Amino acid sequence: MPKPPLPARLDAFLAKPNAAVIATVRPDGSPVTVATWYVWEDGRVLVNMDEGRRRLEHLRADPRVSLTVMDTANWGSHVSLQGSVVSIEEDRDLHDIDRIAQHYIGEAYPLRDRRRFSAWFEVERWHAWHPENI
Amino acid sequence: MPKPPLPARLDAFLAKPNAAVIATVRPDGSPVTVATWYVWEDGRVLVNMDEGRRRLEHLRADPRVSLTVMDTANWGSHVSLQGSVVSIEEDRDLHDIDRIAQHYIGEAYPLRDRRRFSAWFEVERWHAWHPENI
Repeated sequence: MPKPPLPARLDAFLAKPNAAVIATVRPDGSPVTVATWYVWEDGRVLVNMDEGRRRLEHLRADPRVSLTVMDTANWGSHVSLQGSVVSIEEDRDLHDIDRIAQHYIGEAYPLRDRRRFSAWFEVERWHAWHPENI
Repeated sequence: MPKPPLPARLDAFLAKPNAAVIATVRPDGSPVTVATWYVWEDGRVLVNMDEGRRRLEHLRADPRVSLTVMDTANWGSHVSLQGSVVSIEEDRDLHDIDRIAQHYIGEAYPLRDRRRFSAWFEVERWHAWHPENI
């Protein structure tokens, strides 16, 4: 599997508000997947989680993640990123989730009464299927 | 997380040719995700892989998988299934991949010169986000 940086076209694709699924691993080693919003910036990925998400505990115990990003109009073409979380911090003023929500829905995040946490992960490997269609 | 069987509405949703992402784990325990076709039948999931896919080795070494299934028109609503592969067999006459291709693209699978393998997995746990929109 190739290593970063990604080709410019894939970099531009990842910068769009695409559908994505993230995988983490439980303490017993089993994989867990869930759809997620993300933001791609300078070769790193930002995701943001409600304080109640079990995924936060999983990431603290094992920072390894995999993210598959799809164009929903043509999901057979997709990019998958594998890497490790390098920081997990509370999103104290909801700055990060608002930024992500603006990216996806064009407005601030509607739920304001829950603590949230941001995680950045760095890409170690990536692969693309049918990148010619992206 | 709930255990099977799934509610009828989610069962009907899973029977459609939806976008999906599957996660397996490498021998070093890191998660790997990739978009995939699947078929849902009687509470089990069929996926099919080219003989060259590393994912086949991963599944033979560790049968645990997670699959997130999305309606591409509304991917914030999704169903995730966690379970274990219970069989991996060669798809000798391409019967399974043809069935899956019919489900997704309405025709037989176009590539006929590669060996392929089918894996069935049984669902042990599942969860849904915004199932009211599914």
